[in-house]
Amino acid sequence: MNAHRRPTVESDTDDSDSETMRCLSCKEEYDSIDAGTCKECYDEATETEQELKKEIDDLKAKIAFLKFCSPIGQNHFDGKFSDVVLVASDDQGPDGSSPLPVPAHKAVLASRSPVFRAMLENQMEESISGTIKIPDVSYDALRTFVNYMYTAEARLDEQMACDLLVLAEKYQIKYLKGYCETFLVSRLNWDSSLMSYAFAHQHNARHVLQASLSLITENMDKLTTREEYLELVEKDPRLVVEIYEAYLGKQVNTAAARGDCSKQKKL
Amino acid sequence: MNAHRRPTVESDTDDSDSETMRCLSCKEEYDSIDAGTCKECYDEATETEQELKKEIDDLKAKIAFLKFCSPIGQNHFDGKFSDVVLVASDDQGPDGSSPLPVPAHKAVLASRSPVFRAMLENQMEESISGTIKIPDVSYDALRTFVNYMYTAEARLDEQMACDLLVLAEKYQIKYLKGYCETFLVSRLNWDSSLMSYAFAHQHNARHVLQASLSLITENMDKLTTREEYLELVEKDPRLVVEIYEAYLGKQVNTAAARGDCSKQKKL
Repeated sequence: MNAHRRPTVESDTDDSDSETMRCLSCKEEYDSIDAGTCKECYDEATETEQELKKEIDDLKAKIAFLKFCSPIGQNHFDGKFSDVVLVASDDQGPDGSSPLPVPAHKAVLASRSPVFRAMLENQMEESISGTIKIPDVSYDALRTFVNYMYTAEARLDEQMACDLLVLAEKYQIKYLKGYCETFLVSRLNWDSSLMSYAFAHQHNARHVLQASLSLITENMDKLTTREEYLELVEKDPRLVVEIYEAYLGKQVNTAAARGDCSKQKKL
Repeated sequence: MNAHRRPTVESDTDDSDSETMRCLSCKEEYDSIDAGTCKECYDEATETEQELKKEIDDLKAKIAFLKFCSPIGQNHFDGKFSDVVLVASDDQGPDGSSPLPVPAHKAVLASRSPVFRAMLENQMEESISGTIKIPDVSYDALRTFVNYMYTAEARLDEQMACDLLVLAEKYQIKYLKGYCETFLVSRLNWDSSLMSYAFAHQHNARHVLQASLSLITENMDKLTTREEYLELVEKDPRLVVEIYEAYLGKQVNTAAARGDCSKQKKL
């Protein structure tokens, strides 16, 4: 008798001689060879999952409470009661006029960034004038940057993620930097890898650096023909040296691992 | 041969005739009657759990970013750059002096509470003077209340939870009210149930009301001998009527359910 072809029964029936069971999760039949967990552990896991989902809901509610939102429900604080403005000092208004100021609160800036804190607490020029000039940034990026400090949210594209990462590095906002790095790593591809690598080097973005370096060393055969490669050799050859060092290190490791394998096989 | 006494094998061995399996989660042996999930669903559930835990870590990091904390790492904003103070108007300093003001920021108060927002945006007395008087509250409760608006955290005991719930109701801070209600429900017992019931009624605390009412109607035999009961009959007899109505409703429902059961049995 082939037990696998017998009519299927639910595992909680009294027919304990049957070998074909029904999974309590997907409701499909399975044989003992495909068994996962006992019923007790299944129940426990289900409970754990529900508890984790409850915790996630609770944390999301806490975030909603802690975020600054405008009363009209937009995901942006409305600048009321602001006691400081930030100005994109290199930017100009649409008709060459002065750049638009972005209103903010000293308490929020100081809470999010140790650099703003030092600037504002120590009665420096910015604190007295109530204006913080932010160089090398567009109005849009500055607005998004300030909004992030109130909501921990931003709509990113590659350019905005780079702009915000630079600001996050400059003003030591670790959490925002991580947010931008995660986004940039997710968008990394062979075409952008050399640019990303150089950018990550310049702005101390460790995750982007590792990810782009890993991508480059996996495609060394295509490297030297790239225009960006030639530019990098010209502009910052030390960075190119680091690529080759990383590649060499990888080769040595791979060889060592192969050696271990063949040794194990011989044993 | 009794399959349940055969030597146990891992379910992924080739011995598919065996009925005793080993749970991949707890590693214990089990029979087909105790089967939970197939291997595929087990793997999926494990992955889901890891993803949920990762999401929880991410959300916690977001909360840490959004909270206001002092630079010395205490879970309290330090009142720097404050533009408003709150005063427990009924409280006095240790030697009968004026009560200590609790510094805050208009932007934070307005973001957390629609009542504070209206008060501060509409150039009312509080906005102009920069002082908000909070009646019927101790300095400690006020400090904890303000701190909560910055951190979404508070150390509660029963008294503090009641004090904060009253403030949360008054200033329409829904999230804080829920936080206090959850705490009070977790501490509910027979001794405190009547007091909690009356308190919940007075301050529109729906969860506490339901939980205390449920506890009271489960112990109706002990109700009328309680001192708090006699006081409530004297002070607010309508609340006592509601207890009896809830009890009656429960009895009717139970009788109806019993009726259904006996009908089903007869069928």
